[in-house]
Formats: sequence, structure tokens, C-alpha cells
Amino acid sequence: MYRTHTCGELRIADVQKEVTLAGWVQRTRKMGGMTFVDIRDRYGITQLVFNNEVNEELCEKANKLGREFVIQVVGTVMERSSKNKNIPTGEVEIIVKDLVVLNASETPPFTIEDETDGGDELRMQYRYLDLRRTPVRANLELRHKLSFETRRFLDDQRFLEVETPVLIKSTPEGARDFVVPSRMNPGEFYALPQSPQVFKQLLMVSGFDRYFQIVKCFRDEDLRADRQPEFTQIDCEMCFVNQEDVLNTFEGLTKHLFKHLKNIDLTEDFIRMPYSDAMKFYGSDKPDIRFGMKFVELKDLTTDRNFVVFDSVEYVGGICAEGCATYTRKQIDALTDFVKRPQVGAKGLVWVKCEADGTLKSSVDKFYSQEDLKAWAERFGAKPGDLMLILAGEEKKTQKALCELRLEMGSQLGLRDKNVFAPLWVVDFPLLEWDEDAKRFFAMHHPFTAPKPEDIALLDTDPGKIRANAYDLVINGVELGGGSIRIHDSKLQHKMFEILGFTPEQAEAQFGFLMNAFKFGAPPHGGIAFGLDRFVSILAGLDSIRDCIAFPKNNSGRDVMIDAPSSIDNAQLDELCLSINPIQK
Amino acid sequence: MYRTHTCGELRIADVQKEVTLAGWVQRTRKMGGMTFVDIRDRYGITQLVFNNEVNEELCEKANKLGREFVIQVVGTVMERSSKNKNIPTGEVEIIVKDLVVLNASETPPFTIEDETDGGDELRMQYRYLDLRRTPVRANLELRHKLSFETRRFLDDQRFLEVETPVLIKSTPEGARDFVVPSRMNPGEFYALPQSPQVFKQLLMVSGFDRYFQIVKCFRDEDLRADRQPEFTQIDCEMCFVNQEDVLNTFEGLTKHLFKHLKNIDLTEDFIRMPYSDAMKFYGSDKPDIRFGMKFVELKDLTTDRNFVVFDSVEYVGGICAEGCATYTRKQIDALTDFVKRPQVGAKGLVWVKCEADGTLKSSVDKFYSQEDLKAWAERFGAKPGDLMLILAGEEKKTQKALCELRLEMGSQLGLRDKNVFAPLWVVDFPLLEWDEDAKRFFAMHHPFTAPKPEDIALLDTDPGKIRANAYDLVINGVELGGGSIRIHDSKLQHKMFEILGFTPEQAEAQFGFLMNAFKFGAPPHGGIAFGLDRFVSILAGLDSIRDCIAFPKNNSGRDVMIDAPSSIDNAQLDELCLSINPIQK
Repeated sequence: MYRTHTCGELRIADVQKEVTLAGWVQRTRKMGGMTFVDIRDRYGITQLVFNNEVNEELCEKANKLGREFVIQVVGTVMERSSKNKNIPTGEVEIIVKDLVVLNASETPPFTIEDETDGGDELRMQYRYLDLRRTPVRANLELRHKLSFETRRFLDDQRFLEVETPVLIKSTPEGARDFVVPSRMNPGEFYALPQSPQVFKQLLMVSGFDRYFQIVKCFRDEDLRADRQPEFTQIDCEMCFVNQEDVLNTFEGLTKHLFKHLKNIDLTEDFIRMPYSDAMKFYGSDKPDIRFGMKFVELKDLTTDRNFVVFDSVEYVGGICAEGCATYTRKQIDALTDFVKRPQVGAKGLVWVKCEADGTLKSSVDKFYSQEDLKAWAERFGAKPGDLMLILAGEEKKTQKALCELRLEMGSQLGLRDKNVFAPLWVVDFPLLEWDEDAKRFFAMHHPFTAPKPEDIALLDTDPGKIRANAYDLVINGVELGGGSIRIHDSKLQHKMFEILGFTPEQAEAQFGFLMNAFKFGAPPHGGIAFGLDRFVSILAGLDSIRDCIAFPKNNSGRDVMIDAPSSIDNAQLDELCLSINPIQK
Repeated sequence: MYRTHTCGELRIADVQKEVTLAGWVQRTRKMGGMTFVDIRDRYGITQLVFNNEVNEELCEKANKLGREFVIQVVGTVMERSSKNKNIPTGEVEIIVKDLVVLNASETPPFTIEDETDGGDELRMQYRYLDLRRTPVRANLELRHKLSFETRRFLDDQRFLEVETPVLIKSTPEGARDFVVPSRMNPGEFYALPQSPQVFKQLLMVSGFDRYFQIVKCFRDEDLRADRQPEFTQIDCEMCFVNQEDVLNTFEGLTKHLFKHLKNIDLTEDFIRMPYSDAMKFYGSDKPDIRFGMKFVELKDLTTDRNFVVFDSVEYVGGICAEGCATYTRKQIDALTDFVKRPQVGAKGLVWVKCEADGTLKSSVDKFYSQEDLKAWAERFGAKPGDLMLILAGEEKKTQKALCELRLEMGSQLGLRDKNVFAPLWVVDFPLLEWDEDAKRFFAMHHPFTAPKPEDIALLDTDPGKIRANAYDLVINGVELGGGSIRIHDSKLQHKMFEILGFTPEQAEAQFGFLMNAFKFGAPPHGGIAFGLDRFVSILAGLDSIRDCIAFPKNNSGRDVMIDAPSSIDNAQLDELCLSINPIQK
């Protein structure tokens, strides 16, 4: 060992001990005849002292140390005269008697500090230096802990972690696959898994009873801030369970993680909100319920007053922003601009202020009387000082816009504190979504999701109305996980493929092995998958999952540090029987 | 929940409880007016009883159950009259009052028993049924436990599990990469990692101090029984350590795993055997030291007796098989055939028997006197009753053949008990291997391995003689892990690439980011990677790693269950800018 202690562990009780430390030079300061060096490792920072009067040569050596040099020192722990209360080692310092430079360092391209001067691109290129910064490393430490505690909890609950294959078969349903050419089977390809869905269901058929895996998954999609071509799932499946069993088990996991990672007790049962309510009251299947401001529908109170905008639309609804009657013209104009942005898509914004004196003032005073507005205020539960914000239009689009407005108001009012966590289960998702372009149904979750037993009769009459035994865990407006009870009956599974527009031959070619497996005693089963990257991001209060991934890719799917992807040798291509087509730019 | 208890947990103390069980029908037996059904799940088997006199309809239903039907029963726990001592639930049975068939099953293509009638190919095709068999599931349970205990141990030792990317960059050094075409970067490819080597070294540069990961790795090689295109490593790296620190840490892990998985205390320190000794005494860099039978060299004792075979060769050596002087002519002929097999490659076998009366009888009596043979026997330490087996030829080849002969004799003499574990560290590997075809050195371990400091001077004079700070963990003749102290100096790393025949441009293109990283304060570091599949196999006493992989591939790299790899749509190929070349069969 190059050290007897880490740079984070010496305390006042260690005074007079001779110790050896190794680490990186955080900074050096020369003060009179003394040189102070802060030595850093993963565990902390310790102050080293060199005295020019005691050992001039050694002190000279210390003076030459640059930032990020790797050094090893031998010295004696002493009590500091001026203590630093901000760090755990702040009561002591090391009087150094020996110094070895283990490796020098060029000046790093940005400062290795909690707040660095390095821009995003530079930090990604030198990610190995960015990872030295405490906040970045803390995210990865949290990630380690989340994985570890997840495994501990699930192991306790008799789940077995089983590794499923990475080189699997491409399936056209779902997102785009990454594919891997097979040299031994020329012209054929493996696919990288978008999830181990089929394998975990097979493990249930195998009687593994309770399966989990923390596993890399892959999707060849165009990227966004919260998407990476490779991402990590906590993938779980149980047999002989109904929906309630699955929710209870993973509510338990979620509470365990909050307790052990954040020391937060989520004592309440998580709310279970039907998808239809989520859409009606929050305009989203992942509502942020850290704050209220639920949608209020006004269509019936707004008609027949000659206001064409409201009369002509399907839906009129709004939210009540508490205490915002003081908003200025400018602020309201800004909100109007906000809702009219193409990403939000509303045509305009109607507002009603409840003044302190109880009168109501609105942007539609021309059309609506004080009595009308009072009826609205009553429905909103608005008090003097509140501001009602109202949108109108096609129902789904308007709810979506209202959702954005609600989130914006939540942010403006400071109601979206990153240290407050509001979990809920969204349940009773529709089983199918009609795609107007493809003129067919798509599975909202995936084709293996079971319909609610009471809705099965609708399969032949009105498939679009069927609700699924499917559920999402949502925290603070982020979908952290989703799952369902699966179909375990091969006839029903066949029927589902039929509804989804598979010919029997296509179904057989793609999923024949699964339907075959169902013929040999498939138990009732269901499960869930959590997005681990997102889970860590929520717990760490990050804006992008990229910040909790050691070596992320950029929005073009590139790793700019190692410069991947890259071209390969022609010999490699020949072995794989592949040619690259001329590329049209 | 479909059950109140599992099929493995009811005991005599549960008598009179009303319980609900769910599971698979293992077998049904009709005896007089009674029907007995064994219900099975992952946790065990419980006997169900149906009485025709009490409920004829129910009993009739039970009589119709087929093997592997999935059922749910409600009933009362009763003490059995004839107890089954072989199973933990053998003292009780369930008097069933309600039976639900959750799913029927076709007759499985092979029996779901510990000893099945299904052949390899059939079992792989229906792997989900094969996994129902207790011994197969037990291997995967052991695998889960090994992963879990590894994580627990390493977490305790402050290792952080960090996920490194799967979509990385292809490098020509090492085995063949699997590649993944990039749609977003047409004509370019990712590679799947053969190991996270470079990333774990970067994490050391990042100051992560102690890293591990249980991670899938990929090699596009022609397959053997103990090779799979995807395999799992326990990948570890530490900084500020020397070789001894790494060995001690992972000796600790190994002992922890034996204790917690097999309840075996490996109390002794693991032997550290230099590579040169391993080759000299066992003809292998992974000696099986469950038994002795070390090689004895005889060249000096065999010359000048006009035996051309021995006189003309570089090496004469043998082993002493205790108590085998009774081997018949037929047995010895079989051994001769064994060593002459092309895989072993010896030209012939010389034998000397130490008869009970002390006389020596050999296949070379014509050339060697009793005195000569006595001198041999003395060197072998042979006692009356022993058999000396001697090979001659070129040194390395003969040692390799002798190694095979030794292992064969070990097996014949029952010295290779799967329940005995003999671990050792092989150390001081050569840094480089000369490749006669390529006329250049290759790294024996990989190009990042550090030479022993005392051998660094040989870099310029005699690189082939340099020993590396590299080590392998070997148990029972199987290499379970290997690692090294790494180069952390960019100049030395450059020098290594030069010796390995890289031009500076090639080195820069392939590993520029690593050498760049080394310029910014790289700490001394080293690590190890264990083959998890092999580790499980050794602990479970398996002959092939395939038996501890849930969904393995066959020798052509195919998953015969899901039928992968397979062809993909032309649209997918077009998106990737790829064409498949006409395939020459």
C-alpha cells in the first residue's frame, strides 16, 4: 500500500501518529516560510505542512508541486492552530517529513473544483478529469448505492438476479434495435435488447418465481437530454401475483431506497391514480403532485355568452394560481407567450384575477359578468388574491398545454422543490392506442400486457376502450418505472397479436418461442422495470441522466472522449460479409 | 397473491392451518379412492391429497391433471401417516378442498426431473423447461449468490460499482470484436467491449480509488465448451496499491465466496507460484495442485547410455504415479495411446515400474541398468509399487504433454475430487511473447501491464526476458481470474506500444485518450478480472460454463431457442447504410 490512511479519515484522535498519505494536489499556498498543500482523494482533503526553516530542500520540492500532481507523503498528524470547520479533517494537519512525486500532471484544461470553469464539451472530452470533481463523483456514488440497496432489498424478498443474453434477436415491434452482424452466421444479425421482456417472462414459465436484473438496455433512437442509446433498467418479474402484489412489493423497494439513500421516510401509501384521472386533472400520465393546481373544467359555465373562442371549442379548463393576482401585465404577457410556444401549442390565455376586495377582473370582461366569473371562481375554489388561468381548444391538446402551464406556474411559485418527493402509481392505462397513420392499434405498453379481466369482452367489440393491468411509478412528474400483469394464455396472446395487425406467420416468426412456452404451463405473472438512470437523477436532483452516467454519449450518440463510433478495417467488414453503401450527405 | 405459502415451507407446526398453494404438477398417483398430487415450485414440493369418498367431483378433477399443469389449491395442512424423510415438507400433506387449473400444459418434450431423458439439443431448444429442473436452477441460484456476495464483500471494502459503456470503440489488439453499426454516424461502428480495461484505468485516473463491476463482455471467437460469445466478468481495479495488496484483497474475496457459498474455510494463505515454476513442475500456467505428481527432470541421468531417443532431445522428464506398478500392459498401452494423441503430441511413453521386491522394470531395460533406474527412482522419490512415466522431446512441448498425462493420471487415481479446492496465485508472468509468424512481440496479458521494476532495464536489451507484475488466480487447474499492476506513466506506455510494433500514429489513434489521461496525474494502479461463469462452474462442479448460464449459445454462436442471430429487414440495412455481400459457401 502506498498509504496508511485515506485523505478523509484523520481526526484529532490521530494526533502524533506517523502516517503515509497518497493523493492529488488540490492546491498549494505559500505563507511566509511555510508551504501548505491540500492533498485530495475520493475520501476527502487533508492539509500538509512544509516548514522552510526545518527542511528547506523538502519545502522547495513542495513549492514546485502543480495542481493534480500525484504525491505520497510521510509525516506526523498535528492539531491545527486555525481549524477548518467545513471539512471533517479540518482539525488536523500533517507535518511532512518525506515527499514523493508519484506522477506529475500537466495543467488540467479546467479547474477540478465543485464549480468548474470547464464547459460541457470540454468536460465530456476530458471526462476522466470531470469525474474527479466531488459533485460528479457523488452522483456515481449514489448510483452505486442505489444498485446495491436495490439488490439487497430484492435478495431479501427472494428475488434471483438472472443475467439474460445481450446478443438476441431483432423484433420490429417497439423502438429501433441496434444490431450486431454475426461472423459465424454470415448475413445474419443479433440485436441488442431494448429490454429483457421476453426472457423474464420465460423465466417465469421456468418457475424462477421472482426474477430481477440490473441490466443495460439499448435503443437506437434520436437522443434527448434524458435519453441515451444505452441505459440501465432495474428489471423485475414475479409469478402468482396480481397487480396489487406487484405495486406493494415495489412500493416497498422505493421506500427502502428513499430511506437508505436519502434518509427520507415515505410513510404514506402511494396514491393510485387511474390514467383517466391523471389526464383529466393534470393533463399528463406522469403528473407532478408535489403541488395541487388541479385542472378545473369550465365548459358548462362558459357557453352562451357570445364568446366564440369558448363556444366553438371542445374543452375549456384552467388552473388556479394561488396568490398570483398581483401578476403584472408583463408577467401575464410572458405566460401568454409561454402557452403559445409551438412546444405548448395553445392559441391564447384567458385570465381572471380575484382582487383583494373580492371583485373579479379578467381578460374576458366583455363577455362575462361578475356573476359568471364568480361561478368560475367558486368552482376553482379561488380566494381573493388568486389568479385563474384558462385555456380552451381540443380536449387532449388543451390538457397537454394546460399541463405545461401548470408545471411552469409550479416552478414560478417554488412548488417544485427538488428535495420534496411525491410518488404515485398511475394505473388502468389503456391497453391500445390507435395510430391514425398506420391505421392500426399499437400496444400502449407492449404486446404482452394483460387486459383487465372485466374488459376482456371488449376485445371483440371495442378494443380501444380496454384498460390494461398496467401501471407506472411516477415521482415528481418523472416516470421512474412501468410494468404490467402479463398475458399468460397463449390463445389470448395470439388474439393480441391479431389485434396488433400481426399475421399468424409474423407472430410465429417473431414470438413463436414465447407462445410455444405458454403451452407448457405458464403461471400468471407480472412485473415492472425501473429506469435506473432516471431514479438516480431524481434522487440526486439532476436535470439530465447524463450526469449520473460515468461515460455518457452526446446527442449524436458519440463518446467524444474515446471517439466512438469510428470506422473499422476493411478486413473486419469482409469477415462480416458487409459493405458500406455510398453515403449520401 | 395466488398463495399463502410456497410449496417448500409447510412443516409439522403448520398442521390444521388452511393454506393456498400454487405451482406445477410434478406427478399424480391414484391409490384406491385417493389421489395424490405433488405440487412443485422453486422452493420445494408438497403433497396434495384428494379423497374420492369426500368429494368425487374434485377428485375427478385432480385425476385429470397432467404433468406441468399450473394449479392453485386451497386446503388444510395435515400430518402424513407415511412420512417422506427426503424432503423438508415430507411430514405433512394438504387435504384439498378447492382446485383451480391456472393453466394447462402439453406434455413436455422431456421429463422435468433431476435426471431427465432429454438430450442436449432438445433441452436447449426448450431451455425454459430445462430451467425448471432443480439442478439447473440450483446452478443459477448459486450464480445469483456469488454475484450478490461479491458485491457485498467489495462494497464493504469501499469498492464502487461503476457501469462502463457497452457501445465503445473497436481496437485491433486482442481478440476479434463484435461491432455495431451506427445509424446516426453512417459507415461508422461501435464495438462491444472485450473487457472494460481502458475505462477502469480511466476511473483510476479519475480518483475513484476502488472500482468494480460485474459486467458482460464479448469476444467474437470460435467457441469451445468453456467459451461463450458473451460472458461475465467480475472486473476490479484499485489505486495506490502494489501487487501484494491486490492479491491479498482478492484472496479475501475468494475466501469470502467459498465460506458463504460452500461453507468451506480456506484458512491457508494461497500459494504464490512463479510462472517459471508452474511450467517447470506442472507444464502449465494453471496447475491443478489438488495432487502432487510434480515433474521430475531426468536429462542428466539419461544421457550416454546409447538410447538415441533420450540422447537426441532437449528434455527428459516424468511423473511418479503412486501405487500404479500394478498397471497392466493394456493400461500402459492405453496411456501410450493417450500421450500420442495429436492433442497431447508426445512421440511415445517410457515407463519404469518399482516392483514390490524393490527391483525396477522398464520399457527401456535394454539401455539402462538397475543402477541407472535406481538413480531415477531416487530422484522421483518412487517407492515400491509406484510407476514412473517419462516423456522426452522439445522442452515446452514435452512439458505440455506431460501436463496432460499428469492430469489424466490424477483423474485415474481419483485425485481430482470436485469437492476439494486447491487455489494458488501464479505470478511473475513473462511480459511479452514472441510471435514467430508475425515476427513481433505480443503482450502476454495486455499492453497496459507493468513490467517488474527490476526488469525495466531489459526493455532496451532483451524484452523477451522481462517479467510482468501480472498474476492469475488458479483453482483446480482452471484460471478463474487474472490481472496486473498497470503502467501509469505515459512515457513507459508509449515505449510498450513501440515494442509491440505500434507506430506512434497507431498508438495515438487507438489509445490516445488513455495516454493523454496519463498526463494529468495518473496514480499507480492495478486490478484483476474474474471469469464469473467459470467461478460458478468450479463451485458447482460443472464441466461447462454453459450449465450456469440461463440462456447460453451453442458452438455456432446461436441461441436455438429464440433462433438468433437471424436476418433483418432491408429497411434496417438501408438505415444503417449497409449491404450484405454475396455469401460464398
